[in-house]
Amino acid sequence: MIDPVVIGVDVGGTKVVAAEVGVDGTLARVARRPTPGRRVAVALLEDALTEAVEEVAAGRPVAGVGLAAAGFVDAAGERVAFAPHLPWRGDRVRARLTQRWGVPVALDNDANCTARAESAHGMAQGVDDALVLTVGTGIGGAIVVGGLLRRGRNGMAGEFGHARVVPDGRGCECGGRGCWEQYCSGNALVRTARAGLEAAGQGSDGALARACGGDPATLTGPMVTQGAAAGDPVALAAFAEVGSWLGVGVANLVAGLDPAVVVVGGGVSAAGDLLLEPARAALTGSLVGAEHRVVPPLLRARFGPEAGVVGAADLVRRHLA
Amino acid sequence: MIDPVVIGVDVGGTKVVAAEVGVDGTLARVARRPTPGRRVAVALLEDALTEAVEEVAAGRPVAGVGLAAAGFVDAAGERVAFAPHLPWRGDRVRARLTQRWGVPVALDNDANCTARAESAHGMAQGVDDALVLTVGTGIGGAIVVGGLLRRGRNGMAGEFGHARVVPDGRGCECGGRGCWEQYCSGNALVRTARAGLEAAGQGSDGALARACGGDPATLTGPMVTQGAAAGDPVALAAFAEVGSWLGVGVANLVAGLDPAVVVVGGGVSAAGDLLLEPARAALTGSLVGAEHRVVPPLLRARFGPEAGVVGAADLVRRHLA
Repeated sequence: MIDPVVIGVDVGGTKVVAAEVGVDGTLARVARRPTPGRRVAVALLEDALTEAVEEVAAGRPVAGVGLAAAGFVDAAGERVAFAPHLPWRGDRVRARLTQRWGVPVALDNDANCTARAESAHGMAQGVDDALVLTVGTGIGGAIVVGGLLRRGRNGMAGEFGHARVVPDGRGCECGGRGCWEQYCSGNALVRTARAGLEAAGQGSDGALARACGGDPATLTGPMVTQGAAAGDPVALAAFAEVGSWLGVGVANLVAGLDPAVVVVGGGVSAAGDLLLEPARAALTGSLVGAEHRVVPPLLRARFGPEAGVVGAADLVRRHLA
Repeated sequence: MIDPVVIGVDVGGTKVVAAEVGVDGTLARVARRPTPGRRVAVALLEDALTEAVEEVAAGRPVAGVGLAAAGFVDAAGERVAFAPHLPWRGDRVRARLTQRWGVPVALDNDANCTARAESAHGMAQGVDDALVLTVGTGIGGAIVVGGLLRRGRNGMAGEFGHARVVPDGRGCECGGRGCWEQYCSGNALVRTARAGLEAAGQGSDGALARACGGDPATLTGPMVTQGAAAGDPVALAAFAEVGSWLGVGVANLVAGLDPAVVVVGGGVSAAGDLLLEPARAALTGSLVGAEHRVVPPLLRARFGPEAGVVGAADLVRRHLA
């Protein structure tokens, strides 16, 4: 007899990742699809999710699917109210996909799922007060207070990415200006590296310029990470800038929440210390009263960019139990 | 027989307010002293507290004194670790004043005390998730999550006033730059009104110019409030600017915490809607996804600037019970 598969799906602004997840958080089969965009029909996105889930299931029976969505999910886990990087606007995603797939589906915000995974198996295990961030296409967040994941009055707590950090700053997909995620995210990393390459012009022959074939318009986040790992100065400068913005924003949040630990997941966390070292320096440099207090450790999620998938699987597993 | 008096003391950056507080939060006798400053000897500040407490006691027996301090108080309520506007730096304030006064003393942060008062008797009564701000010399904050006042890992949660809202912005007493309270506080209000009067020059003959005898250097916060209430355009413009900064900062916090209600106390809350109307407009205008969510009400504390005193008295009363 084949055990039914539990699948977690992370629905991000750039890509969809689905995976079979074991009870201890280990990933087995993984499928990826590009996110079709935020201005497309909802059906296109849900088709992509369906394909990814079917690829992971590979004909085996599925016990349930957990969805980690990069957007505002209501407190009941039924609807995606709003998602700057996805087409859902008030859609009853859980019920619709339950019906389409014929299996139990659970839904939560991607950062909340990351917090679940890291609290259950990762860097926030046993921690009463934790701040969890996902740095991907944008920034998501979750707060653990008094040992519990807190969702606020309407289930929308943790949307730190749209805090205004620069008056009249860069325009944001949310409609605002100067949002934190315009300075600290995968998008910001690529934009900063692209500007660096363009400024260097023909003189640039480093790893990053070669990776994009000399065309900065084709740069991607993983290229910047690989370039920085290879010592490319433009890529390193992009991480220094984005990491510094991460640290300043984390300092604002630490002043407000005083967590024991700050855990960073999301796609850009794959870069590890390339991102976190400049962030740690900025955190200590910007945190009010840093010399009179404990500065919390700033840690990469144990499950890195996959923490959302792991937490989503945990969520649906809990509903099945 | 005379009932022993319970006294609450709010130790702010500009003034010290002590009051006899009834069990229902009503204030009886009140005493005020100017805060001696942040660069003076600690003894000068503690002498001022002592004078204020003695004036309220007026020879009657004192059951206990609660202190609401505008600074970082440790989780045990023993020490003021750091206070940008006060001279205490790691001082064991509770034990020292217990010994000096010979009565039970309790200590907490001023915004935490405001949150206690408003949760017990005021605008946050029965509310599970509340954000409480004190706008005075600077900004203090407190968070109620899941029905409890939360202090974070080290007791220092809620220091929203030192979130950086402007890169390379105005210098702050905390040593940082661009802190929110440099744009939204009693100090910011006076500075903005002063600049407005100076820009208007000799042509300014409104209520505000008359209140300060034509010398902008002598302006105080209460003068700006009175001027605005009398329709003075410079004073109204100052409230519009400071109120707008309040709303933008509250929008950042609402995105992060999703509270059911936002309560504003502190000295500047005496101005009521002069401050809160522009803040409400900016909150709705800046909050991410405002059209897809419930925008929480932004309310003046029921006890206004006295909420800290009421909460401090509640705190020591609880220790006595």
